[in-house]
Amino acid sequence: MGRRHLGLAPEQIVRLEPDRVVVLDQRRLPDAEVELECRSAAEVADAIRALAVRGAPAIGVAAAYGYALAAARGDDLGAAARVLLESRPTAVNLAWALEEMRGEPGDLAERARRIHRDEVERCRRMAGHALALFGERSRPLTHCNTGGLATGGVGTALGAIVHAWEQGLVESVLVDETRPLLQGGRLTAWELQRAGVPFALVADAAAGSLMARGDVTHVLTGADRIAANGDTANKVGTYPLAVLAERHGIPFVVVAPTSTVDLATPTGAEIPIEERDPAEVSERFPARNPAFDVTPAALISAIVTERGVHRPAFGESLAVAA
Amino acid sequence: MGRRHLGLAPEQIVRLEPDRVVVLDQRRLPDAEVELECRSAAEVADAIRALAVRGAPAIGVAAAYGYALAAARGDDLGAAARVLLESRPTAVNLAWALEEMRGEPGDLAERARRIHRDEVERCRRMAGHALALFGERSRPLTHCNTGGLATGGVGTALGAIVHAWEQGLVESVLVDETRPLLQGGRLTAWELQRAGVPFALVADAAAGSLMARGDVTHVLTGADRIAANGDTANKVGTYPLAVLAERHGIPFVVVAPTSTVDLATPTGAEIPIEERDPAEVSERFPARNPAFDVTPAALISAIVTERGVHRPAFGESLAVAA
Repeated sequence: MGRRHLGLAPEQIVRLEPDRVVVLDQRRLPDAEVELECRSAAEVADAIRALAVRGAPAIGVAAAYGYALAAARGDDLGAAARVLLESRPTAVNLAWALEEMRGEPGDLAERARRIHRDEVERCRRMAGHALALFGERSRPLTHCNTGGLATGGVGTALGAIVHAWEQGLVESVLVDETRPLLQGGRLTAWELQRAGVPFALVADAAAGSLMARGDVTHVLTGADRIAANGDTANKVGTYPLAVLAERHGIPFVVVAPTSTVDLATPTGAEIPIEERDPAEVSERFPARNPAFDVTPAALISAIVTERGVHRPAFGESLAVAA
Repeated sequence: MGRRHLGLAPEQIVRLEPDRVVVLDQRRLPDAEVELECRSAAEVADAIRALAVRGAPAIGVAAAYGYALAAARGDDLGAAARVLLESRPTAVNLAWALEEMRGEPGDLAERARRIHRDEVERCRRMAGHALALFGERSRPLTHCNTGGLATGGVGTALGAIVHAWEQGLVESVLVDETRPLLQGGRLTAWELQRAGVPFALVADAAAGSLMARGDVTHVLTGADRIAANGDTANKVGTYPLAVLAERHGIPFVVVAPTSTVDLATPTGAEIPIEERDPAEVSERFPARNPAFDVTPAALISAIVTERGVHRPAFGESLAVAA
């Protein structure tokens, strides 16, 4: 299904087999590379909810495969769509992929694989478009995981960074560890090490001091949902990075496919923010655990989709692209 | 040595015995309450470096006790002062306490205990002065640990918060977990639970989204060194909180005794920032680990010392106080 990248083929992240959807269990990385087999749409929904497969584009693909699996099993497709849609509230790619699956007749397995192939191709194009944003000796900082694991392709923000590194434009990468679940410290670090890209992990709270020292040239993140006006929901901690980047005159760039753009959501205020189990933060003490935050469009220097580099104001440009 | 607070007496945090300095080993909290015995100034320095005792005021007190212990043992006092001074670079309280010890003749054990008593009294006064900053139903957010453990008294920022809660002004407290060493998640949470104060831990990166929702009324932190112009070095992650607080119109308040004010350091640019072992961030992948950052005075709404509430511009007011 396309070239290998970062040592990961798209079908290693998530694939459909005749009687199951198979995902690389991201909860076990980097300690173990273990596949998780889902035998029904409900089991795919469980895998999405538990973050065995995660990242907005990848959960869209997984949901498409889960829906196709339900069809192959002869299950109720309305119920399958519901359970998949309800697995996580913030990323719009779930709804988008299920809409794509329901909107067309024909071979649902092939339709789901086409959605996956399309995401792989979107990643490749985003990385190409984003190249124009990097100067020589760039030192980008990124948050969470937006690589192959998050997309089933080469990635969004991380795909762009690795592509720019392959072109000799990136000196090294700073990676927020991304508490509480350490998607940066576990997954992005694992992907960058496999790809041979020089990087350093930092505590999320250290990004500001590194910007103040001049150690960061760009901030690149993915997105879980981009509202019609460009306001962007992404992993909690993204908004503080955007505020700090603005203060230090550092470009803040969102890289996401048009499947993440939600023209039906006017602004960030209407994006539902998932509150996850406080035990992810602390098993001993009371905690709060908002999983996402919203970055206002005014803090975003550019949004890169497979259609190109969108500049503010984003509204019209996104409406044409999505 | 003064009233108990948060269930912790000052001598539980750090004390001098005839042949040893005893500290509550903060590396083991909250899982175990274990004392660590230091039999020489070098062992006290090791305990400071390893963070068995930490917090700017508390390490000043520990260093004073270590110096007095060296005197009791008949060790070379110049060498003892050097090893203690070099244990950590950022907090100025180490240098300050050793200067106090060396500046006066007489009973060094009593002199060290007076430094401790003075810090206890400074904490009490800071908490009193800070009360004027709280309105009803305040929801302060704090970072790292600035309580009894960090000071040997009632604390700086956390002492102020708990005192305001005792006066009925605080609804609940948000506590940054403070990666990589979780001084918030381990120590502040432990102190607040013992004191019966309602609180919730949050991932450091979540503070911005909570401010955007209106869930934070004040940010209070301690300090490791305050330069003559008010620029303040504190645990990494403090500077991003100050930038976010300014954006949201939330008061950002530093609470620290005058022993933390360093008039010999003109601005934050001259404060040495400790880089700690990257393994504290990740044992598996490359990492960077700056332990402190610098918050410019322009982002600080007020600095509370035992002398009162200082308002910008801080230079003259700090020069008179310190």
